[in-house]
Amino acid sequence: MSTPTRQITLRRHPMGWVTPNDFEIREAILPTPPSNHVLVRAIFMSLDPYMRGRMDANKTYAQNFFIGEPLKARVIGEVIYSEHANFNPGDLVCGMLDWADLSIAQGSNLRHVDPTVAPLPYYLGALGMPGMTAWIGMKMGAPRPGETVFVSAASGAVGQIAGQIAKLQSCRTVGCAGSDEKTAFLLDELGFDAAFNYKSSSAVLEALRVAAPDGVDMYFDNVGGIILEAALDHANNFARFIQCGLISQYNLSREETTGIRNLTHINRKRIRMEGFIVSDHSDRLEEFMSEMKAWLSSGQIRYRIDITNGLENAPEAFISMLKGGNFGKKVVQIGPTPPESHEVKHL
Amino acid sequence: MSTPTRQITLRRHPMGWVTPNDFEIREAILPTPPSNHVLVRAIFMSLDPYMRGRMDANKTYAQNFFIGEPLKARVIGEVIYSEHANFNPGDLVCGMLDWADLSIAQGSNLRHVDPTVAPLPYYLGALGMPGMTAWIGMKMGAPRPGETVFVSAASGAVGQIAGQIAKLQSCRTVGCAGSDEKTAFLLDELGFDAAFNYKSSSAVLEALRVAAPDGVDMYFDNVGGIILEAALDHANNFARFIQCGLISQYNLSREETTGIRNLTHINRKRIRMEGFIVSDHSDRLEEFMSEMKAWLSSGQIRYRIDITNGLENAPEAFISMLKGGNFGKKVVQIGPTPPESHEVKHL
Repeated sequence: MSTPTRQITLRRHPMGWVTPNDFEIREAILPTPPSNHVLVRAIFMSLDPYMRGRMDANKTYAQNFFIGEPLKARVIGEVIYSEHANFNPGDLVCGMLDWADLSIAQGSNLRHVDPTVAPLPYYLGALGMPGMTAWIGMKMGAPRPGETVFVSAASGAVGQIAGQIAKLQSCRTVGCAGSDEKTAFLLDELGFDAAFNYKSSSAVLEALRVAAPDGVDMYFDNVGGIILEAALDHANNFARFIQCGLISQYNLSREETTGIRNLTHINRKRIRMEGFIVSDHSDRLEEFMSEMKAWLSSGQIRYRIDITNGLENAPEAFISMLKGGNFGKKVVQIGPTPPESHEVKHL
Repeated sequence: MSTPTRQITLRRHPMGWVTPNDFEIREAILPTPPSNHVLVRAIFMSLDPYMRGRMDANKTYAQNFFIGEPLKARVIGEVIYSEHANFNPGDLVCGMLDWADLSIAQGSNLRHVDPTVAPLPYYLGALGMPGMTAWIGMKMGAPRPGETVFVSAASGAVGQIAGQIAKLQSCRTVGCAGSDEKTAFLLDELGFDAAFNYKSSSAVLEALRVAAPDGVDMYFDNVGGIILEAALDHANNFARFIQCGLISQYNLSREETTGIRNLTHINRKRIRMEGFIVSDHSDRLEEFMSEMKAWLSSGQIRYRIDITNGLENAPEAFISMLKGGNFGKKVVQIGPTPPESHEVKHL
């Protein structure tokens, strides 16, 4: 058995902003899956900001992507051939697979997903790594009822969930995002108490002051940069800063970034700033899944997905996401959805 | 009764670096102390970096100094007149008093000090606010035996103690300071495992790599700036950064500082960065005093004091300290030491 597929590979390590020329699409022939492996047809593929770090030549916390090799992503797919006892053709699975129409994967690296619980892309978002990232970060920040929680990139894959968890914990919830459409979504669809568009605000600090008149007790940071500086300026004593990501910095060299100039606040305001990576907390996966499934099915948490169609469009979608061009959790639809799946409701 | 004294007042809020013209020395007449107050003759006065923040017009965590009013400092002095039942002439006390030969203070704001336990200036250093600051910060960082602890401004009032506590906890202890004399002191007198002079190092990061070949597990930060950046670059996963102060930034406007450009490490290395102020922990004063007295009397902790003589020289001594001109805990000797006191041993 030899199966043709398209794959997207890393052509070179991006310097600064990622460009389409950093990718290559190619035809490949997959062999028969070896013992304990399966062949998976991709349906939805996740695009996430952390992938930018993996494209660099120097190692970050996750294993790097390699030049000339297919890029990797979390994918929801359908098993079409199996040499593993736990998987049968037709099974829906999630795993770290190639940017490709078809991938071969070890069965032990795949999980079954249930298409009757939630729309399939949710397993890449609210019920996947981004949702658990938000959930862990909110556990770390542990805001008390009545405190103000500020979330940046609040309409993104992680921010949507972080803000809604803050609301469920009776916090005043303030979000920022990069368009008026996004801030309206935060207010009207997700129930944020206040939101501002950092791109149209002449002064981020002033916008934050208006949105959070009682100061910031917890900041869920997805972006870094000038928004982090403003959050430090406007933080209350004993604030918790949960550092989830710093997307504003991922495409800048150290010489290009302006740096954070007001860390004296960490001392004077006794701020705790803490970074984390969700994979360190995988022992809490079941707890997270059961809580998040309940919130989703009760409608207490809603989730917006942003779908790009076609594997060949994945590089452009990824580049656009790094610039804030996505509106909701970014996924690429690579193949057709099975008929029994939930529809993605457009929020 | 009316008593003449010299006082040093704040003439204006310093802009950037403090200058002698920001101070004024004047003669004043003190009235008879009112009920529950005492008159104190100053012996030793503490100069501390945090005072720089209090000189600014905008409020920091501590109450600001006021233009035309005497500056305040922790002072060890002798009661020479008392209207308070707990204090008698001849008692040695510590409290927040004027930069002056003589001050009137409420008895409730004073503590007795015992001159037979340790040299008097130690109550402004190892046994005072700086020592407790180091002790609390090391509790927060909680290094495990064998971990590497890095301390900046390591020969200063706080750094000396932080590093020696790290040694007592069986950590590899690395310090940096601003002269070869200071780094030799860290190695030869305080038992640090490694030390480097950041002023003579062409690249701070390279010097830190050599001094801490296994990376940094805990950083006790007294300085901020480029040394903080190097510590982030060289930090291990799950490092704790205890932010005690950022003296390198205190005389710079936001526009003048370069900012910290590598906070992505906080996320990728899961670093916890935490600020604190010792006065939040005053409930632990007795615990601290008893532990520190034991360490001092057993010789497990040693402490270097840097004495400037004469109240009139306090402004210059303060300015010099902000530039790293002190070598050890900075105090000003204002009046003679009582005969029963311990001598300050010169380390």
